[in-house]
Formats: sequence, C-alpha cells, structure tokens
Amino acid sequence: MKAEILTVGTELLMGQTVNTNAAEIAQMLAEVGVGVYYQTIVGDNPERLEQAVQTAVSRADLLVACGGLGPTEDDLTRETVAQVLETPLKRDEGWARRLVELFERRGRPFGKNNLRQAMVPEGGILLENPNGTAPGIYLERGDLTVVLLPGPPHEMRALMREEVMPRLALGLAGTQRSAVLVSKMLRVVGVGESRAVELLEPILASQSNPTIAPLAKLAEVHLRITASAPDAAEAERLIAQASEQIRAKLGDAVYGEDETTLEQAVGELLKQQKQTLTVAESCTGGLLSHRLTNVPGSSGYYVGGVVAYSNAFKIAALSVDDEVIEREGAVSDTVATGMARGARSASGADIAVAITGIAGPGGGSAEKPVGLTFIALADGSGEVCRRYEFWGGREQIKARAAQSALELLRRHLLNRGE
Amino acid sequence: MKAEILTVGTELLMGQTVNTNAAEIAQMLAEVGVGVYYQTIVGDNPERLEQAVQTAVSRADLLVACGGLGPTEDDLTRETVAQVLETPLKRDEGWARRLVELFERRGRPFGKNNLRQAMVPEGGILLENPNGTAPGIYLERGDLTVVLLPGPPHEMRALMREEVMPRLALGLAGTQRSAVLVSKMLRVVGVGESRAVELLEPILASQSNPTIAPLAKLAEVHLRITASAPDAAEAERLIAQASEQIRAKLGDAVYGEDETTLEQAVGELLKQQKQTLTVAESCTGGLLSHRLTNVPGSSGYYVGGVVAYSNAFKIAALSVDDEVIEREGAVSDTVATGMARGARSASGADIAVAITGIAGPGGGSAEKPVGLTFIALADGSGEVCRRYEFWGGREQIKARAAQSALELLRRHLLNRGE
Repeated sequence: MKAEILTVGTELLMGQTVNTNAAEIAQMLAEVGVGVYYQTIVGDNPERLEQAVQTAVSRADLLVACGGLGPTEDDLTRETVAQVLETPLKRDEGWARRLVELFERRGRPFGKNNLRQAMVPEGGILLENPNGTAPGIYLERGDLTVVLLPGPPHEMRALMREEVMPRLALGLAGTQRSAVLVSKMLRVVGVGESRAVELLEPILASQSNPTIAPLAKLAEVHLRITASAPDAAEAERLIAQASEQIRAKLGDAVYGEDETTLEQAVGELLKQQKQTLTVAESCTGGLLSHRLTNVPGSSGYYVGGVVAYSNAFKIAALSVDDEVIEREGAVSDTVATGMARGARSASGADIAVAITGIAGPGGGSAEKPVGLTFIALADGSGEVCRRYEFWGGREQIKARAAQSALELLRRHLLNRGE
Repeated sequence: MKAEILTVGTELLMGQTVNTNAAEIAQMLAEVGVGVYYQTIVGDNPERLEQAVQTAVSRADLLVACGGLGPTEDDLTRETVAQVLETPLKRDEGWARRLVELFERRGRPFGKNNLRQAMVPEGGILLENPNGTAPGIYLERGDLTVVLLPGPPHEMRALMREEVMPRLALGLAGTQRSAVLVSKMLRVVGVGESRAVELLEPILASQSNPTIAPLAKLAEVHLRITASAPDAAEAERLIAQASEQIRAKLGDAVYGEDETTLEQAVGELLKQQKQTLTVAESCTGGLLSHRLTNVPGSSGYYVGGVVAYSNAFKIAALSVDDEVIEREGAVSDTVATGMARGARSASGADIAVAITGIAGPGGGSAEKPVGLTFIALADGSGEVCRRYEFWGGREQIKARAAQSALELLRRHLLNRGE
C-alpha cells in the first residue's frame, strides 16, 4: 500500500508552524506496515489544494489529508476532496445536532458556517471527534482509501489512534497486506559517517531487507535498520542479524540502541563500575554537566562539578597553578590536566573530566585557533589529556567538546572494565 | 516568485525526524517576500526524487532542496537535480582539496566517496559550508533558481542566512516582485500565553495587517507580527506601530526581539551595569550556566559557577551549613539562600544566583513534590529567594527552572537600574 500525507494550512507552508502532524501520521502508518511515499504541504488555496489532491489520488492507494476541516472560509479540504472524487456532500444530522447543542451549552451564538463541519462525502464514514467540532472522515472507493483529519494535533492524534488505525488494520487484514515494518537504531560514536559507511560497505552494498540508513548527527552517527516481514517476530529476527553484522564491523563504537543517549551509556558504565564522577568545564560552560544530569538517577554517580570560566575561578576552585596559566595559557594541555586533578581532589570523586578550549567567535589566534580544545581525565592512577580541533560556530564547538569528553570517559571506562 | 521546498530523507518521510528545516526555510523566504506554494518530502529513492524534482521545476521559479548531499550512496539530490536539468556535474577542485586536508588534519582515512560532495552542476555556484563537508549549491537557469542545501539544521541555517538570502535578495531587486512580507518577533517572559492573549485582546481582535500570531514556547511567549506592504519601509512602519501597541500593554514583559534570547537580554543588562555573575546549580545541573555561556562575550560578566549536585558538594564548594541541610533538606529556602551567599563569596562575583529543586522523576514526597524549586539571588545588599512548583518531565523542569532563574535575575537588574 502506497500512502501519501497531505497537510493543509498556510501557517505550515509559511513555516510559522512546524509540521509535526505529518511526522506523527507517518510513524503510526509505519507501525502497521504502510509506507509513506510522499508528503506534501499546501496552503489554504483552492486551486493548489485541488491539484495536490488530484496528484495524490492518482499515485497513492491511501491519502491521509490533515487540516482545513474547520468552519471558516479558509477551510477547503472537505469540499475539494469531494469535488476531485466527484462525490456529493451530505449532511450528517447527528453531528449537526451535536454542534448546535454544544454551542447552546457554552452560551455561544451558533454561526451557520459551523454546519459545514457536518458534511460528509457520500459513502464516507464520519469519525466522531471527541476533542473538537470538526469530525474526521473515512472513505473507501475501490482501491483508494481517503482519510480526512482535523489539524489540531491532539484531535488528529486521537482520531488517528481510535478511529483510523483500527479501520486500516481491518482493511489490510482482508486484502493482501504489505508486511510489518520494524525499525531499530544503532548509535555510533567516535567514527565519522563516511568512515562508518566505508567499514560497512559490504553490508550496505548487499542490503535490501533490512535496509540500513546511516544518519549523521552532531559528532555521532545513527544507523537505522528497517526490516519488512510478514510478522513482527520475523522482522525482529532480520534486524538482530543485521545488527550483529554491524557490531562485528564497528565494535564498541556502537554505544547504544534506539533512544539511548551517550550520557546514559556512560552513566550505566559508571554505575556498573561503582565509580563517581566530577567535571571541570571551561569552554563548554556547563553543557557536559547538563547532559550528565539529564539522566534520571545521575545523582547516584555524579557528585557535581565546576564551571571554571575565568582564570581566577580555575585558580580558586580547582587550585590550578596561576604561573602555569600565565606561561602556557588557559587553553593548554597542562591547564586541562591541572583542572582535572584539582576537580578530583576538591570533590573526592573517583574520576574527574576537565575541558578547556576556545569556543569562539572571539579569542582565537594563529597559534591557538577557535575550536582548539584540551580534554583531560584524572583517576587514582594518573591523568591523560587529548588535544582536539573542533569546527563550527560557538554552540557547535561546545556541543562537540562535550560529546568528545563523554566519549573519552566512555573509552576509559571500557578499558578499565576489561 | 513561486517557491517550492523539497526536503529529502527517508527518516523525514517515515516521521522519525520532524521537518523543521522546511519550516525554517519557508520563514526565511517569507522575510524577503518570497511565497512558498508547495512543500514536498520524498525519501532517498531515485525515481520518486526525480519525479518530485521534475514536478517542482515545472511549477516553481525557485526550488530549494534540502538534504541528500552527503557522501553516501543514499545521497542522491545533487545527481538527480543535475540529471533533471540536463546539466553535467563538474568537480570543484578547491573543495576537493579542502576535504582531503580536513580528513588529514583529523587523522582519518579519506574515502573516495567523499569527493562526490565536491561536484557542482555546470553554471552553479558552490556555497562554502563552514560547518560540514557537503557544500550548498546555487544555480540560476533562465527564470529558474535552484538552491541545494545540506540537511543538518545548523549547516542549512548558516548557508541559507549567509549565502542564499543575499543572492536571492539581489535577484529579486531586479525583477518585478510581489508585495514584501516583513516579520518581527517580540519575545515575552513572565506572562503565560492565555494571559498575554487576554491583555492583547483589543489589539488581536482588530488585526488584519499586520497580523499578530502568539506562539507558546517553554516558559515564554513569542508574538510574531507580520506586515505585508508594497515595500519594506512601509511594512516596517506597520510593524513598529503594532509593536508599540503591544509594548504598551505588556510593558517590560517584552524582553527582546527576533533572535534575542533571554540569556542575551540578561547579559546586556549585566554589561550595562558592569556587574559580574556566578551561579550555583543543583537540580538544573549546569543548564543555567550552559545557557549563559552560549552568548558570545559572556566571559566579560560571567566568572563561572558550581554544579553542587550532592550535599557534600554544596557543603565543600559553597560552604552551605550541613546542619541546615540536615534539618530543612537540600530543597529549601534556607539552602538556596545559603548556596547563593556561598557562591558569591567564593567567586567574588557581584551577583550570585542559586537553584535547588527536585527535577524528578524520583525524589519527590507529599510535602516536597517533584518540581518544587527554590531560586535565590544574592548581591551586596542581601538575598532574596522565591519558591516555584514546576510541572513536566525532568528536562522540562530543568528548563523551566533555568528560565525562571534568568527571569528573576532580569527583574533584579531592571529594578536595580531604575
């Protein structure tokens, strides 16, 4: 089954509202194995809406249109779809009564235009909307299924879940149904996208089911494995197989699955190894600490940290030697190491991670360019420090530095655990 | 000028990623009066991508395609557009060299597939991407303009702002342009959306040009004012008028315009008043410090801070009285005030802000529920402390607490400055 999602609304087209509806509908369709082939947005314009509906019904088996079902003159979806399908609209008297009563109860005057919301194309089913005045519509015509949904996200969502999905599942059960689609994400760090693709080349080249799609994120790569099979168990089996092949190539660069974040993966290792952590941040300005504490239960291993932004703060809170700062500069191997050592002894934590760098846009020089960063780690057995050159704007550099610090810590814990 | 936005990526089509790129591009185009007529999403599928490009160039004067420019086999946009326009691709040697050097500098092996990113359709201009390996492309062919942009949002955004918008503005200056749309955003804090709408009711009821759209954000409200006029000067005049009316109703709840963040507004006040700042964070875990240091030049007033997550850290780094913690609990008025006082004297900063609360999901009780938070401010003249009950998940509570701390600080500075 080929599906197309059409969202209607000038505010979406102009970008004043982000189209979360289309994404949610696509996700729900994927759950029952219906693949979306196109998504389109048009504004509240009769000609372009008509053209978009024409195009959609000519190439799709399922059209889900969302938005433009309200009472105002702008709301054209119902009428346009009826016109394209050459189907007359009939009034649903039950819904019309309900609307009149609703307005009475709220003590509001009833504008006649509200009755447009009770119109249903002949042969269509009215889907009762518990959250609003515009109902949904479900219409089957030969091989084509058309679903109309109101635009407010909670109304769309409830109708999609309660009314549309069961009907689609029923329809699919009777026909030759396409397969179930199941997805899993593998999350990879420390290996760039192009390098990951190279390592996985033999697997990627032969992929068909499951498919493997690499997705570059900021300083990590996500590999989405999607399998299609007659049932979920078989799809899971195919995914497990591919996942194993990928892990064989990438090793522990795969740090987690699905929604697992790098800070969660690191937190798990700290918990397993019963280690406590402190951090000393200069250029990341608290971001590393913020990410660590986004994990529920992080207070079990994260004792706290210091944002040592000024040199005076590095000296006072972390006992960094002021002569070293003077001689080598705040962004140096020695200062990073000193920050880690100082943070560890001030906090009593088992491990300390320290970051010092130049986030920009100012403060760079030929010798020490914007993006230059040192990350140090101290534990009971000593210190290590690594030098990085990050690129991008200020917030990207902060993000890459925090990410690299988490990865350095993760590597340390993995080696330690062996 | 009729524009169409085409976003490419299976993860968008399947709804795994929400299409914020298309919304941002549409907003930027609206700023220069370019109306978007269609938005389309297709996956990484050669036939459907080709069809979507064909359709777009047949009906639009401007096609902005985003995504699918990376190095992998999935990335087909560049090749497909070249094919539809019947234009050969040529290698840009400068960019090719830059890619090779970039990989060398990072000590990573250079996969040949990376060179695909240096290919440019004949007659096209390569738009240098400072944040990534895939450049943008700008191509004019008779009445048609085609823009290709990489998919990562920060890369798209920078190229759109720095490279595409100036070129479009130049092109538009010569042609017969439609009415100019100009937008301005007013950013409001400390007043909820429904209260803001109530206060603005008379203005909102009579609006037609400019239109005023309230948009609820996390713990702030944005009011988008959009004016349409024959030229930019007239549109600006209409916006200034509406803006003045709104400010008359909301007073200094309006903290900034357009892209100004609350941390920037607070930073400006600190700079003007020559005050330095430190923060002591418990439940926000570094988020407040992270937001403050996202502002370029924040090292001029922000000296650093402490994330005092454990009680031991509060005692050691902030000299909070351990008996008080024992007696009143870490989440209390007295501890917040003690943290602020301790942070101020340890750092030597003029002002200290301290936050202690329960971010959840665990740690709440009947007496002290999840979300309960105390925020204190200390300066030379003493301390103030406010009690809050925030709702939402862990990250929302952290975000609301950091936002409220910034607003408390802003109020303090506004009163101080009077």
